[in-house]
Amino acid sequence: MADYRKLWESLDMDLEKHDQLCAVLPEFYGDIYLSQENRPEGMNYYNFVVSEIHGFRIQELAEHRKKGGKVFGSFCIYVPDELIVAAGAIGVGLCGGSDFWIPDGEKVLPRNICPLIKASVGAKISGTCPYFQSADILVGETTCDGKKKAWEILGKYTPIHVMDLPQMKRGKDKIHWIDELKIFKDLVEKMTGNEITEEKLKEAVKLINEKRRVLQRLYNTRKSEVLPISGKDALLITQIAFYDDPKRFIEKTSELCEELEDRIKKGISVFEENTPRILVTGTPMAIPNWKLHHIIETSGGAVVCEETCTGIRYFERLVKEAESIEEQMEAIADRYLSINCACFTPNDGRIEDIIRLYKEYKADGVVYYNLPFCHTYAVEYNKVKEALDNEGIPVIMIESDYSLQDVGQIKTRLEAFFEMIKTSK
Amino acid sequence: MADYRKLWESLDMDLEKHDQLCAVLPEFYGDIYLSQENRPEGMNYYNFVVSEIHGFRIQELAEHRKKGGKVFGSFCIYVPDELIVAAGAIGVGLCGGSDFWIPDGEKVLPRNICPLIKASVGAKISGTCPYFQSADILVGETTCDGKKKAWEILGKYTPIHVMDLPQMKRGKDKIHWIDELKIFKDLVEKMTGNEITEEKLKEAVKLINEKRRVLQRLYNTRKSEVLPISGKDALLITQIAFYDDPKRFIEKTSELCEELEDRIKKGISVFEENTPRILVTGTPMAIPNWKLHHIIETSGGAVVCEETCTGIRYFERLVKEAESIEEQMEAIADRYLSINCACFTPNDGRIEDIIRLYKEYKADGVVYYNLPFCHTYAVEYNKVKEALDNEGIPVIMIESDYSLQDVGQIKTRLEAFFEMIKTSK
Ligand code: SF4
Ligand code: SF4
Ligand code: SF4
Ligand code: SF4
Repeated sequence: MADYRKLWESLDMDLEKHDQLCAVLPEFYGDIYLSQENRPEGMNYYNFVVSEIHGFRIQELAEHRKKGGKVFGSFCIYVPDELIVAAGAIGVGLCGGSDFWIPDGEKVLPRNICPLIKASVGAKISGTCPYFQSADILVGETTCDGKKKAWEILGKYTPIHVMDLPQMKRGKDKIHWIDELKIFKDLVEKMTGNEITEEKLKEAVKLINEKRRVLQRLYNTRKSEVLPISGKDALLITQIAFYDDPKRFIEKTSELCEELEDRIKKGISVFEENTPRILVTGTPMAIPNWKLHHIIETSGGAVVCEETCTGIRYFERLVKEAESIEEQMEAIADRYLSINCACFTPNDGRIEDIIRLYKEYKADGVVYYNLPFCHTYAVEYNKVKEALDNEGIPVIMIESDYSLQDVGQIKTRLEAFFEMIKTSK
Repeated sequence: MADYRKLWESLDMDLEKHDQLCAVLPEFYGDIYLSQENRPEGMNYYNFVVSEIHGFRIQELAEHRKKGGKVFGSFCIYVPDELIVAAGAIGVGLCGGSDFWIPDGEKVLPRNICPLIKASVGAKISGTCPYFQSADILVGETTCDGKKKAWEILGKYTPIHVMDLPQMKRGKDKIHWIDELKIFKDLVEKMTGNEITEEKLKEAVKLINEKRRVLQRLYNTRKSEVLPISGKDALLITQIAFYDDPKRFIEKTSELCEELEDRIKKGISVFEENTPRILVTGTPMAIPNWKLHHIIETSGGAVVCEETCTGIRYFERLVKEAESIEEQMEAIADRYLSINCACFTPNDGRIEDIIRLYKEYKADGVVYYNLPFCHTYAVEYNKVKEALDNEGIPVIMIESDYSLQDVGQIKTRLEAFFEMIKTSK
């Protein structure tokens, strides 16, 4: 690894504490990722990205900023990348996925709140995440209670803009949402000093759609009976999509897809035949939260799809390419409002998605993943379970935070679940 | 008590289970309320209301419905009574405040969710609350995550309309809120078959303002150095305001106020001199949740004001009386948007309220009450505490549900808090 200490210092980081963080990640990654057998060659790029997680990309952000460019940090896939890119800025997803940041988060937040929120706030106030430190502004949203209120506290430490997400999806909510997008567009233009022209917006829409397409292409390989890539690796790729350079990401992921499609033709799978195929649904898994996937894939299952924000919700459905700015803004609003997040009420579209994806990805069972104290997804489980029961689809709820204390217990429950699936197959 | 079994049967109640509920309430009430010394005479009316809690008023609702009248049940003080009353309907507040309903709520909801929500849903699905059974429709809102999502489940058991509350208070949010009020007005008109005329709306605004005024008059007596009424009794009166007949309530509470004002003149207090005066702030206390007030007032404190939805948030600030329906609707929107609930972001108005009330009611300390898993109020504590610390106002956070297991522990903490206040006085 190159020496990035000067860079980190320039970002006003807590270097000592950051060293502690850097000391644990490589081993953690090695145990979970590098131990896998028969990994696709193309995963080397993502290995590189992780090994340079606080270096290479941070350097790029620093160079962008040196030239006057801006960086926007966000916490929800409702924040429209298109507007950020159209103004020549860079967007990075900032959700915290590590236990490391929880104690700092708990200094200002209640303990019984979602770990994603605690880790995100902790990452900022501890000064140990160079992505947070590289963001010129954070963009929050009024999705869930925890986040909605946490922005007020985060706002003490850094500039933040909060987008008001509608809670429903009626006609009037769409109007309200288009309005929020316009407010955000104005902000982006003001911060960057760049006007978002028709031309620029079109280009940005094309680019982000391209990113969505390559992710869909990746996920399509997971529909095959022959699974050319582990769920764990696919998850990592989606997580990296949140902050990597879009163009490079598209190129590298396309290369990987070629390899995977070739594997399918040749019948090369990374799983044994008859491994139960699992659809994971629920709350987001921010990097480096690989816990559930790792447990599933070391307990006799294979994850074939994620109906999560670090899965299909991030890239399914494209923005329709339109002519005028007005039309393009409406098309952007439409696309984002088509994301079926449990923060909306009602959210029956998500149930339809789960059942559809279950079939598309030829899954054998569903694992409903819930971060503790995430009320929206926890309450929604009742309706999802009812619908899956009606369809005869097996489902198990796993509520778990980032700590590794409950791994054994989850493993036992999942092994029993997979056995049940196998015997009824 | 009169025999209401026929009435309850007609409401499709679970009579056996309801008997269990009825068996515990009188003793509970007796221990907490009737044991108080030197209570005002005027409290007899509220004793009567409680003793007849599932009888007398339910009978009135039944008679109203027999004549074709409608009953609207709600769970938040943002639901505008004015529109319900203007259409000749009756509104009742339905928040569940008893442990009795929790197990039934937990059948369909996660355990780690606010007890108010679990109890409310449990009350409906257990068929043991005659108010729920008397409601022709429930009115939910998108305030907090738990409630927002619980309506989807409650909707399986009963008709429900959900009002979309804004999450912020900008100009555009007010427009959105006026729109929601109009949707609600249409619904009320459709359900009742009664048009809400200018005249009717004016009358309703007057009536509800009158109710607010009498509650303010009651609370004004608590500003006196001589405390003529316990906090427990004042809380009970506010709780009863949510479902009693407004006219009778105004009359009876006015009578009580006269007695209290007379007591002040005569120097009759229900507390010993130098009892620490406590402002309670935080989450609502639905009937029969008298736990915190009872503990405070049996541990050496006196509650002088509640900055809660079962306190000043319910009645402070009147609706401006206006001419046209349009203007009147806007005035209603303004008044409700002036409620400072933690579900909004930001919510700095609440901090101003707390500091103002602390002074107005000559309080010596603040108890911040939080129902477990209520994220909005829990996260907001950080900012409230910071502001109170700056003002030199002592504050203690008490997080507690409806169970009585933690009473001893809370008592110990509060006694220490009151001692601290006394010595620094
Ligand atoms: S789960 Fe909902 S709130 Fe969270 S990132 Fe996804 S869309 Fe946003
Ligand atoms: S997982 Fe749930 S509680 Fe956590 S940030 Fe996302 S929506 Fe909020
Ligand atoms: S606390 Fe907020 S959501 Fe609850 S009743 Fe009060 S205003 Fe409504
Ligand atoms: S107390 Fe909090 S969690 Fe409970 S219903 Fe009210 S706002 Fe929601």
